[in-house]
Amino acid sequence: MRNIRLLIAYDGAGFHGWQIQPDKPTIQGEIEKRLAAIHNGHITLHGAGRTDAGVHSRGMVAHFNAHKLIGPSVYLNSLNSMLPASIRILEATEESLSFHSRFSAKGKTYSYSIFNGTIQMPHERYYSHHIRTPLDFDSINECLSIIQGTHDFACFETSGSRDLSLTNGKGSIRTISEAILVNPNPFFYEISITGDGFLRHMVRNIVGTILEVGLNRRTIENFRETLLSKKRTKAGTTAPAHGLTLIKIFY
Amino acid sequence: MRNIRLLIAYDGAGFHGWQIQPDKPTIQGEIEKRLAAIHNGHITLHGAGRTDAGVHSRGMVAHFNAHKLIGPSVYLNSLNSMLPASIRILEATEESLSFHSRFSAKGKTYSYSIFNGTIQMPHERYYSHHIRTPLDFDSINECLSIIQGTHDFACFETSGSRDLSLTNGKGSIRTISEAILVNPNPFFYEISITGDGFLRHMVRNIVGTILEVGLNRRTIENFRETLLSKKRTKAGTTAPAHGLTLIKIFY
Repeated sequence: MRNIRLLIAYDGAGFHGWQIQPDKPTIQGEIEKRLAAIHNGHITLHGAGRTDAGVHSRGMVAHFNAHKLIGPSVYLNSLNSMLPASIRILEATEESLSFHSRFSAKGKTYSYSIFNGTIQMPHERYYSHHIRTPLDFDSINECLSIIQGTHDFACFETSGSRDLSLTNGKGSIRTISEAILVNPNPFFYEISITGDGFLRHMVRNIVGTILEVGLNRRTIENFRETLLSKKRTKAGTTAPAHGLTLIKIFY
Repeated sequence: MRNIRLLIAYDGAGFHGWQIQPDKPTIQGEIEKRLAAIHNGHITLHGAGRTDAGVHSRGMVAHFNAHKLIGPSVYLNSLNSMLPASIRILEATEESLSFHSRFSAKGKTYSYSIFNGTIQMPHERYYSHHIRTPLDFDSINECLSIIQGTHDFACFETSGSRDLSLTNGKGSIRTISEAILVNPNPFFYEISITGDGFLRHMVRNIVGTILEVGLNRRTIENFRETLLSKKRTKAGTTAPAHGLTLIKIFY
């Protein structure tokens, strides 16, 4: 038996998220459909996590087990030739059988893109959240430093199923090793957050709340209190999905 | 009477080109619809030229005349609030009545984007032409130097209506002041062509033919002979629309 690891990029716009759903296009569903065609039978693709509808990826990792003696490069080429251009397999490698995309993962980096200017160029509308009012980036940076370290992030968890991937038994406690703001182009800002695991909607809830601080609708002190409160009702809105990209999964 | 000039960016993907057509979404049609709402009556928007279905713009210029005493900044904000995010008015300015977007224009720059690598990231698929085979960029550069200057570009003209905008009476003779290749990012190449006017599909026909040279399916000498032949049948295929962006119109 072979254990094949895939590195996957996708444009989340046309999909109902990663996880397979009946009668709805999902990333997992699209790839499993092609794996089934290659193997003449169902193959389960195990993702390192789930992304919500509309969220993009440049670094999702997934694995599957197969009995066929097909080399990784054949999977890479076959899948890319069958998949829509909105999903690309960037790498395919053979791993030991002990490798599991979800349980072996040690951390993830997400990036949230913000266009902070009056007029957003049309081709940027699918990949960055447009905020017209000038943001206070000093305050945003201060909030980002507040979330670094190990905290109970319950206030930023949307209720529902919890991603237990990396953090079994830790409840809503997670460690954020890096939370930084970069400004690669004029008007473009990316909030990059790396952690050992993320609760449901955690990055989007953090960003939504931080943006309220950046718009001077919430103080830095209130942001700090919100984190300590562990109450979802204290935090701000969930930032829209299309600004979020899964960048990397660490092993 | 006021003469208002608009600088317009758009994502051509969802549109049947610039020019208004019954029952089909076009850039001119979308903007005229909003101008009609503002003025309670039809206003004709005169574009500096037409772009084909799927072609993008970061620098289309158009003008319209209106009797209402509405300032340019009000047009800018009103139109952007009414238009879909795929069309953005970047600037609105009042010009003298003698300004005409088409007849006053002195030249245009187009850019054609090529992704020359094995795997194209999903978010790039709408804005660059994907070519997997490594291109011979030295030959491409030589072809670009061949088209610079004043030539009869009949071989690169798709038959049909001719854009007489800047070149009335010149037949298919045009002057290309600059034709260069830039490589802003790894695997990304942009062919930037500036001229006093362009025949129908001229940039896409030039690029399609140059790419055949870059793929070693045609020699540089054949490219030179093709230009001299003035015969459309000698030239190559029309490169796909989604790689092309109208960058700037000069006045």
